[in-house]
Amino acid sequence: MINEMTIDVRVRYAECDAQRVAHHSVFPVWMEMARPELLRANGLSYRECEDRGVLFVVVRLSVNYRRSAVYDDVLSIDVKTTNVGRVKLEHDYTFRRGDEVLATAATTRACVDREGKLRPVPEQMLLR
Amino acid sequence: MINEMTIDVRVRYAECDAQRVAHHSVFPVWMEMARPELLRANGLSYRECEDRGVLFVVVRLSVNYRRSAVYDDVLSIDVKTTNVGRVKLEHDYTFRRGDEVLATAATTRACVDREGKLRPVPEQMLLR
Amino acid sequence: MINEMTIDVRVRYAECDAQRVAHHSVFPVWMEMARPELLRANGLSYRECEDRGVLFVVVRLSVNYRRSAVYDDVLSIDVKTTNVGRVKLEHDYTFRRGDEVLATAATTRACVDREGKLRPVPEQMLLR
Amino acid sequence: MINEMTIDVRVRYAECDAQRVAHHSVFPVWMEMARPELLRANGLSYRECEDRGVLFVVVRLSVNYRRSAVYDDVLSIDVKTTNVGRVKLEHDYTFRRGDEVLATAATTRACVDREGKLRPVPEQMLLR
Repeated sequence: MINEMTIDVRVRYAECDAQRVAHHSVFPVWMEMARPELLRANGLSYRECEDRGVLFVVVRLSVNYRRSAVYDDVLSIDVKTTNVGRVKLEHDYTFRRGDEVLATAATTRACVDREGKLRPVPEQMLLR
Repeated sequence: MINEMTIDVRVRYAECDAQRVAHHSVFPVWMEMARPELLRANGLSYRECEDRGVLFVVVRLSVNYRRSAVYDDVLSIDVKTTNVGRVKLEHDYTFRRGDEVLATAATTRACVDREGKLRPVPEQMLLR
Repeated sequence: MINEMTIDVRVRYAECDAQRVAHHSVFPVWMEMARPELLRANGLSYRECEDRGVLFVVVRLSVNYRRSAVYDDVLSIDVKTTNVGRVKLEHDYTFRRGDEVLATAATTRACVDREGKLRPVPEQMLLR
Repeated sequence: MINEMTIDVRVRYAECDAQRVAHHSVFPVWMEMARPELLRANGLSYRECEDRGVLFVVVRLSVNYRRSAVYDDVLSIDVKTTNVGRVKLEHDYTFRRGDEVLATAATTRACVDREGKLRPVPEQMLLR
């Protein structure tokens, strides 16, 4: 099981705010782009998970912002699975522009069914 | 049937782009806030429509932008039903800041069922 | 100095994701709507602050999500100033739908000048 | 001068709405990702343009939506410069998923200076 990887994302114009930098609410959107790529690297598809009734919902999010990202910057986002519980998955994130760390973040997600009830994380998502 | 009304919206910080003005992609979002209020003024709820399997999808959108809106501006959005067909609804919009017209827009929406198949606009949404 | 208040916000269609609930990245946007209203209640304008070169940037954000918000829900957001430092402001937030608590959150913001350099929080923003 | 090209974009989870498809307001955001790539293919950078006081603002936008895009779809966006006036640039767009055309669109943008006053499109952006 691959449990860390890096994706690149280019800052969009619409993602910048009146301070001319990427708005802080965009970081969670980028984090959500990194997680399915980690699944894909393991031969899994988050879209198929949802189609089969296995959904993940964010129950805790934290971000520490150190430096701003500006329009057209290419950022690297490192995502790492830090904990796999019976019904929860935890990830850490580092946002970089070259060598500069712009932000660090963490999420906890719960595995639920279509009715929003907690259910076990599927076997094939467990770290081995 | 009430077929026109005005809603007010305050420009959010996150809605502004690196030119410090409301991003042009936010105008369709504001238009979508005005339409259900027009329904509500007629005693209908768009959410209940969807719950009953009557969905509307935008099939045509056009916007003419004349002046910029900046952070914290309070804008008035006039929405008017301009045409009700068997399976389509058309609306016109005017965005104002006081007396200044910032933009005008138009949408055509099609009425579809949960599978995305065209279906007739419900009787109670027809202009009389 | 008023240091807590409540604003109401109606969940927009565009704010919902493919799980049909408000996307978790929208909560920070709503938090950012509440803060300037707290300033306004004290006779201050965040827009004027920025025009005079006093900017605030989010340096830390955390959100705990308990229940989902769905399209057209009207949410109440309680915002409270919890700490005012020399260069930082801290706020707590509670998201409610009637009596149900949907989420709680906290932010730390730093006061900076136009070049992004730390500067003291203006005297008139201090809690007294 | 290269005057047409294609970019690919993967539909993000946050870009989908409660109908589980990409929200119509996201299409203008994707169009805005394609335009600077067309500039870049010609050795120009939109970010540098703005840094030198040459800004472009959307004055007219129209989109025709035919089919929905869903989460995780990879879309191709064809962008083509259709007209270059003294102070305006026009582009056409086609959104495709494989061979299926999902939408077509057009924009007219005006060239302005930092004060928002019309100014000529820079010589090096003219089609030759």
